Amino acid sequence: MKTYNYSDLSKAEIAKLVQRNVDPANEIRAIVEDIIANVQQNGDAALLDYAATFDKVTLDKLYLDKAELEALAAQVSETQKAALDTAYKNIYKFHEAQLKGEDKVETMPGVTCWRELRPIEKVGLYIPGGTAVLPSTFLMLGIPAKIAGCHEIIVCSPPQKNGGVNAFIAYVALMLGINRIFLAGGAQAIAAMAYGTESITKVDKIFGPGNQFVTKAKTIVQSTTTTAIDMPAGPSEVLVIADDSATPKYIAADLLAQAEHGIDSQSVLVCTSAEIANKTIDEVNRQVVTLPRAEIAQQAIDHSYIVVVDHLGQAVNFSNQYAPEHLILATDKWEEITGSVINAGSVFLGNLTPESAGDYASGTNHTLPTSSYAKAYSGVSVDSFVKKITFQYITTDGLKNIGPSVQTLAELEGLHAHANAVAVRSSN
Amino acid sequence: MKTYNYSDLSKAEIAKLVQRNVDPANEIRAIVEDIIANVQQNGDAALLDYAATFDKVTLDKLYLDKAELEALAAQVSETQKAALDTAYKNIYKFHEAQLKGEDKVETMPGVTCWRELRPIEKVGLYIPGGTAVLPSTFLMLGIPAKIAGCHEIIVCSPPQKNGGVNAFIAYVALMLGINRIFLAGGAQAIAAMAYGTESITKVDKIFGPGNQFVTKAKTIVQSTTTTAIDMPAGPSEVLVIADDSATPKYIAADLLAQAEHGIDSQSVLVCTSAEIANKTIDEVNRQVVTLPRAEIAQQAIDHSYIVVVDHLGQAVNFSNQYAPEHLILATDKWEEITGSVINAGSVFLGNLTPESAGDYASGTNHTLPTSSYAKAYSGVSVDSFVKKITFQYITTDGLKNIGPSVQTLAELEGLHAHANAVAVRSSN
Repeated sequence: MKTYNYSDLSKAEIAKLVQRNVDPANEIRAIVEDIIANVQQNGDAALLDYAATFDKVTLDKLYLDKAELEALAAQVSETQKAALDTAYKNIYKFHEAQLKGEDKVETMPGVTCWRELRPIEKVGLYIPGGTAVLPSTFLMLGIPAKIAGCHEIIVCSPPQKNGGVNAFIAYVALMLGINRIFLAGGAQAIAAMAYGTESITKVDKIFGPGNQFVTKAKTIVQSTTTTAIDMPAGPSEVLVIADDSATPKYIAADLLAQAEHGIDSQSVLVCTSAEIANKTIDEVNRQVVTLPRAEIAQQAIDHSYIVVVDHLGQAVNFSNQYAPEHLILATDKWEEITGSVINAGSVFLGNLTPESAGDYASGTNHTLPTSSYAKAYSGVSVDSFVKKITFQYITTDGLKNIGPSVQTLAELEGLHAHANAVAVRSSN
Repeated sequence: MKTYNYSDLSKAEIAKLVQRNVDPANEIRAIVEDIIANVQQNGDAALLDYAATFDKVTLDKLYLDKAELEALAAQVSETQKAALDTAYKNIYKFHEAQLKGEDKVETMPGVTCWRELRPIEKVGLYIPGGTAVLPSTFLMLGIPAKIAGCHEIIVCSPPQKNGGVNAFIAYVALMLGINRIFLAGGAQAIAAMAYGTESITKVDKIFGPGNQFVTKAKTIVQSTTTTAIDMPAGPSEVLVIADDSATPKYIAADLLAQAEHGIDSQSVLVCTSAEIANKTIDEVNRQVVTLPRAEIAQQAIDHSYIVVVDHLGQAVNFSNQYAPEHLILATDKWEEITGSVINAGSVFLGNLTPESAGDYASGTNHTLPTSSYAKAYSGVSVDSFVKKITFQYITTDGLKNIGPSVQTLAELEGLHAHANAVAVRSSN
């Protein structure tokens, strides 16, 4: 890990350090467009073809039903079930609190406005398969969808070579009351949910992480269909802010937890002394060799870096420019700096709150904005699964109060028919 | 206006009726990409060139300052100021109520999670110019940006031929405490705000309506930069649900108010009898000829339509499939059906609540999802100008409670370093 001194860095050097490539996969656009066009035209048949080509499996049918999911879920051990249940309960409890009604506002006498929540009716959840099997992602997307009250939840996950899905995915489906999983992966699954096929309902919004083909397909359907997406996605990342109260062993473990995700993951440490930096590097080197995914983690660590700052304020300043997906405040003084964190996806406070707690079970969502998207985007929440519709009701008196202003404003914008809609109602 | 009987329509015919073309402007993609590339490379110089080419004006500098805005704003009459002030107050009051803190949630003993709002730091507002000068749009975007506490608000609006902006735009800028308006329009303004130029700050999110070049540019920057956009946009539209309690004269005025926006606007009437339909058509024909924008309105009306239903439930069902930007419930029974409205941008209740009230001054936002995007998107609100960051804090006891579950889940996903981040903290 290369180490920089914050005070030595120019504005341009900082800008370069915090920059991530947001569209590395543009060269695959044509391939993904072909897949989308094929699914749009050939529906289920295209999906079966892709399962044979990409997933190396010949499918009899495009989904697993409840009995098949139950058979798979039976492989989950009691300890694993208990852990999944704990995660479910905590995530449910935190997300349930997000669903709130709003008061009516009488903006002027006789003019009342308010917002009401409505679920997005049809949502599609993409759960990656292959080497990274992520039942936790299924919980993070499925629980807020259930709380929001989405009428139809379509789930796509790539088939394993035996034509099934991982036992944990099956177990989570049943926890969520979802009795069908479609065996489709990659860009073809996204296309199926955006356009619909004979088996798969066209959805209003697609959620979930995936490889570069999935990500590119989501971006394309977002700009060419009425189907929305949760957010743009890039490689996962963590930024750790640490001072002398931090424990290098913990910091190293957090940096490596991020690094094991993939070789393009980024783990950044911003700390208040060179001593912390050096001790952390030693710990990283000691711990990395013990990991099953050491090779991946090492590559990710190799392109990660450390910035040494003079004080915590400088650290937060750098972090706000980076806008990390995950931010760990490895300091006993976290309460003093939390208020100045402006750009981040999810924040882990103090020395005993590892990111992995939030990845799985603290209750917060782990579907978060990467690649500096945290400057404008929030992570997934119940908000992501609802719309807020505005309503207004005007009484006879209300129309008298507001009418003249509306007519004046309509006329000054040259929209006479807008003024007339008030005039016809006022003339009686 | 062509009239259909709902019960005669097949599922496919309904699907066709409710469909709008969401990407009519794809053929201009190459032109817009060129403009974006030019602004990215040449910055302010490109903007000055485009002002000369497209807006037919040679600019000395790219913005109007406070003194220039004040000089322009002096042309606004007292009546007009009063109307703008009323709109400002109502919009402010309704949007202010949207800014709410949230409670902390202890998901399990020692594990506390919560969300905090943070403003999006840098936002860009695009205010169209040309024939449609929309100070109301400036209010609808500027007020929630101020309430959210955005640090920097960049405003772009195309220059008029005299090198200025409309007096109302200038007045609204000063109301909002915005002392600079950049004289840039079209795709070039969007590019400038997405990439930044010598004069214009790169923003985190771009808001505002515009012509097809603006819309296409927003779509492109959304998928190629980290700059977000408010929502996709299409032609404006209204759907009026009416029963025997409605007044055809009012319905016709509402349909025409929508129709005068542009020839691609759509005004749909769904009513419970052929009699209402016929009376409304008569009223439309009578009123349209009196309008200054009669030619535009007539063309929009010509491709609009009426659906006659058996009862209000059927009407709401059709409307939910259409997912209108604006929905008028022209019935005394609006309270009975409001709950079943699932997909709509903004809803106008009863016979005395014209859409134009919401367009200008009731308090609700008029920046709304068109083209059936209301199935997945909400209109602009204070929510659109903030992020919600999740925080979590775990105590020593909390780590004991949650740790084993996190470790089990990390191991079952094959992410050993994630488990280790808990293990290192638990071993002390």
